[in-house]
Amino acid sequence: MVEDREISQAVIGRLPRYFRYLGELKDQGIERVSSQELSDIMRVTASQIRQDLNNFGGFGQQGYGYKVESLYDEIGRILGLDKEHNLIIVGAGHLGQALVNYMNFERRGFIFRGIFDIDERIQGTQIRGITVRPMEEMEEFVRGNDIDIAVLTIPKTGALEVAERLVACGIRGFWNFAHVDLHVPDNIQVENVHLSDSLMKLSYNILSHID
Amino acid sequence: MVEDREISQAVIGRLPRYFRYLGELKDQGIERVSSQELSDIMRVTASQIRQDLNNFGGFGQQGYGYKVESLYDEIGRILGLDKEHNLIIVGAGHLGQALVNYMNFERRGFIFRGIFDIDERIQGTQIRGITVRPMEEMEEFVRGNDIDIAVLTIPKTGALEVAERLVACGIRGFWNFAHVDLHVPDNIQVENVHLSDSLMKLSYNILSHID
Repeated sequence: MVEDREISQAVIGRLPRYFRYLGELKDQGIERVSSQELSDIMRVTASQIRQDLNNFGGFGQQGYGYKVESLYDEIGRILGLDKEHNLIIVGAGHLGQALVNYMNFERRGFIFRGIFDIDERIQGTQIRGITVRPMEEMEEFVRGNDIDIAVLTIPKTGALEVAERLVACGIRGFWNFAHVDLHVPDNIQVENVHLSDSLMKLSYNILSHID
Repeated sequence: MVEDREISQAVIGRLPRYFRYLGELKDQGIERVSSQELSDIMRVTASQIRQDLNNFGGFGQQGYGYKVESLYDEIGRILGLDKEHNLIIVGAGHLGQALVNYMNFERRGFIFRGIFDIDERIQGTQIRGITVRPMEEMEEFVRGNDIDIAVLTIPKTGALEVAERLVACGIRGFWNFAHVDLHVPDNIQVENVHLSDSLMKLSYNILSHID
């Protein structure tokens, strides 16, 4: 078994996609797949696939291919999907509600435990059975419920202060939808989903393919 | 003026972030910024900034810095934000509703013109003044309303077929939230937002920083 920390961020970034395709093959009852077959369905080169998957040792064999289920399980383990993460979401607007209502995260071990919002009118209401709480209760909730991930679906104006408060009470990672870069200590992980940035890139690519 | 098409995808991917920071400086009434100052607030190296921004010629001068507003406008132009894009959204669930309700896209010229959903119970209802239409009307609507971008917020099972129908009626780009890779002709642009992938990467990074 290779140590997780030797795997590059570039490979890590590609793992969820392998995980998705292997999951589909597994659901179809397929037991083995060659790098060439994977290459055909994933539309990346077979050599890239071999290089990436070699990081996990032992699963590929010349002329035999990869064992789908073992490789799927191993990638899931590397990604930490065999463990539970406890999440809070800060910001119960449309996007926050959409994320809480998306069941697939829960299937993967990402469990929404608490929802917080600054708006008194929605405090006390429930989203998928989870009560929306006032911001003042956030720290105590995080400490008392072993919360490791905070999802920020608030406007950028409040995000930096909220992030600071969460760092102070021991949060380990942010899934950040606020349109601002969080500045947190190096041991805190941030994964940004900047929707506008993605839409702007699409706009560029469409325009540069028109002429 | 440098031709847009000479700029690498890596640089393009970073442009929205420059655009965001320059917009903030502009809002603060700042007229000039040096690469070193930008480096400090954006936390990337000054040489990376100089290299990236040199793609747009003429805006930086030794000992003078960049003209904030000109550079902001120029990057906006490169990204196509001086033009309007007409969007439809397919899938009026929580995520679709969240995107339609997010006003900032409209401020940037991305205008939601139509919403489509397979669920008869919500057809005819409105989201921010836009009527939810049946899927059967999609092609005619796209052709008749100069729609260039389709936002897919539907489960992966239906996404490939919907994408194929949209390609056939002339869509130019997909903003794809469905958890599947679209296979479309090379002249059609796809920007994926795979939320689960992003969450899995966060999970990995948290676990690999625990020991």
